[in-house]
Amino acid sequence: MRVRNRATIGENVAISESAASPAPGGTSDSFGARLTFGPDRPLRLDSGAGLVGYTMAYQTYGRLNADRSNAILICHALTGDQYVTDANPYTGRRGWWDLVVGPGKVIDTDRYFVICVNVLGGCMGSTGPGEVNPATGRPWALTFPVITIADMVRAQAMVLDHLGIQQLFCVIGGSMGGMQVLQWASAYPERVFSAVPIATSVRHSAQNIAFHEVGRQAIMGDRDWRDGNYLDHDVRPRAGLAVARMAAHITYLSEAALRRKFGRKLQNRERITYGFDADFQVESYLRHQGSIFVERFDANSYLYITRAMDYFDLAAEHDEVLSRAFRRTPVRYCVISFTSDWLFPTRDSREIVHALNAEAANVSFVEIESDKGHDAFLLKEPEFHKTLGGFLGGAAERRGLKKP
Amino acid sequence: MRVRNRATIGENVAISESAASPAPGGTSDSFGARLTFGPDRPLRLDSGAGLVGYTMAYQTYGRLNADRSNAILICHALTGDQYVTDANPYTGRRGWWDLVVGPGKVIDTDRYFVICVNVLGGCMGSTGPGEVNPATGRPWALTFPVITIADMVRAQAMVLDHLGIQQLFCVIGGSMGGMQVLQWASAYPERVFSAVPIATSVRHSAQNIAFHEVGRQAIMGDRDWRDGNYLDHDVRPRAGLAVARMAAHITYLSEAALRRKFGRKLQNRERITYGFDADFQVESYLRHQGSIFVERFDANSYLYITRAMDYFDLAAEHDEVLSRAFRRTPVRYCVISFTSDWLFPTRDSREIVHALNAEAANVSFVEIESDKGHDAFLLKEPEFHKTLGGFLGGAAERRGLKKP
Repeated sequence: MRVRNRATIGENVAISESAASPAPGGTSDSFGARLTFGPDRPLRLDSGAGLVGYTMAYQTYGRLNADRSNAILICHALTGDQYVTDANPYTGRRGWWDLVVGPGKVIDTDRYFVICVNVLGGCMGSTGPGEVNPATGRPWALTFPVITIADMVRAQAMVLDHLGIQQLFCVIGGSMGGMQVLQWASAYPERVFSAVPIATSVRHSAQNIAFHEVGRQAIMGDRDWRDGNYLDHDVRPRAGLAVARMAAHITYLSEAALRRKFGRKLQNRERITYGFDADFQVESYLRHQGSIFVERFDANSYLYITRAMDYFDLAAEHDEVLSRAFRRTPVRYCVISFTSDWLFPTRDSREIVHALNAEAANVSFVEIESDKGHDAFLLKEPEFHKTLGGFLGGAAERRGLKKP
Repeated sequence: MRVRNRATIGENVAISESAASPAPGGTSDSFGARLTFGPDRPLRLDSGAGLVGYTMAYQTYGRLNADRSNAILICHALTGDQYVTDANPYTGRRGWWDLVVGPGKVIDTDRYFVICVNVLGGCMGSTGPGEVNPATGRPWALTFPVITIADMVRAQAMVLDHLGIQQLFCVIGGSMGGMQVLQWASAYPERVFSAVPIATSVRHSAQNIAFHEVGRQAIMGDRDWRDGNYLDHDVRPRAGLAVARMAAHITYLSEAALRRKFGRKLQNRERITYGFDADFQVESYLRHQGSIFVERFDANSYLYITRAMDYFDLAAEHDEVLSRAFRRTPVRYCVISFTSDWLFPTRDSREIVHALNAEAANVSFVEIESDKGHDAFLLKEPEFHKTLGGFLGGAAERRGLKKP
């Protein structure tokens, strides 16, 4: 069960810190480092609401150097979390970017100090709708304020302040993580030396909003959702959340990847069964994705985080002139897209590049040839890794970071 | 309520016919012409099962000429029905192809005799899982045998036999209707003078199966589905069926069409509400599509018909050599696709054309430039209508059909 009482809500202290070592297996205290901000440090939200008494869970990898100049903030995607590499104590699986992050890897933790914060609204230790509202002692559920990408970034900045990191060497993220990267570079240009937005966009398209709405309706239409108060009834909208995940999962893969991986191959059978069992491998795969997801993710968090993505619109915040979001930006950018990504197609990345060009920004843009779709940034893609490593290496040299 | 007892199941007569005039408003007898086949005329199904005592509902428009040579069979898509033009008595709306079919229109009912049969497994009068099994007196629900596109076509052939139509002048259909067209031309080449498969494929792709599986899981995950026996409990899996429709609906439109129609426009409001209401027009539109769909469609029919589409694989039935499905075909084909259709992309149509070319068939192929996506075949698309009309006119002349 995901509800936990928070022993460390600071009533008198501004910030309390708990860095309990993760207990594999996912007990109620299995999350790593957590920072709790007391009532004197409320978080001002885009909606106008203020969040009083909130906690941010995060992981760090590597070592912060003496002048605090080697920090990389990795921003996770919709269903990601702070466990970037090594084991995720909650799922027992390897971190979601273990391919890329670690000693000697592309994001080399022997050289860089890597931080990843579970987003505000998430369900892996940071305050979200599945957590207990300290003011009521009950789960927030839908009384949790609706948050935005900018709110997530504000909360991350609070963590960085606590860690004494004034400027990030780099902020990196794919998909929703990329939205956070863009928000970081736009809102705090002086705090970002370099930025790598990957497979992302400055706004969610109508099609993207539509897919998210299908997922939300699947969750909210599940009788076990109970108007969001399922935790009070000790149930969970499992079926709805699984369907939301299945629909979303299709958008993460390209048609070509689905064809290559599954085609019309049957699942452990010689011929079709004339029934509604998972005859096809692709059906079995999707059902599996749905069922493992509901074990690790909170349905209300899914609602809040998808909403934050839908609301993101960096141009709208600047009178529809996107370049103003990057006015005289000093940040060095590397914008990356994948040819077969139809959720955030290359067109979206080009729009970012055009806006940066209009500000004469330092920007490199690489479209990676891949048939793996949106999820390519999570997968083994040597050209992508080479691009990312190359950019980081050049920027690190410019920043004066020592080689390991 | 969709369950009806069938007064006309022929026990002693081979075929009984009821041509009650449609009663607008959708009473239990609102369906038009119906043919009921008695126990001495069972339908042999691909699954090996036989369907004993079944009814096919159909509509006709125009007049069959003296030598019965001017009949066009229109095959409807997944959620279509036999009400091609004029008013649909069940929904009260215009027929789904009213733009194309009627006196003086592209499919001119002054010249052609148009027939459309509600598919086997459907829910508009033809026998399907929502109908009563005459052997038990209870709704078929999941005891209904799983059917295929070929089964649908066999049942249509029974109707044509009854109408005394030996050869169709043309068989036309889009999407699942196009699968039926291909099946007709392949299984009964001598009964088809010409064929127009539109926005279709000889097999469902992994991505298409995946989207269908999401829809099925949404329905089957709805607690009101009750293992398929919802009619016995006087409930219906409304939420699940609506989600299935919403997910499918996204695939019927192109990303460009969604952008053009909706973009990020808000629904009757000046700014976002920081909530889970339908802030965006595209959300409101999708919710509306879901809610009107559940009023007119049966959830179990949705399961059966999507399954039939998933199972369709014309090449697999011919040892993976697609051209064998059209061996020495005498049929004149016009294959039509739309540039922005990502559900059945032009690549799928090209595959049909290549197979027909390999048999030196008489085939014309037109890819229509459109940004409307898969649904373009249902919408105002002058180039498409010109193509269809031109092909029909030429074929009619060859067939010796008089101009009206």
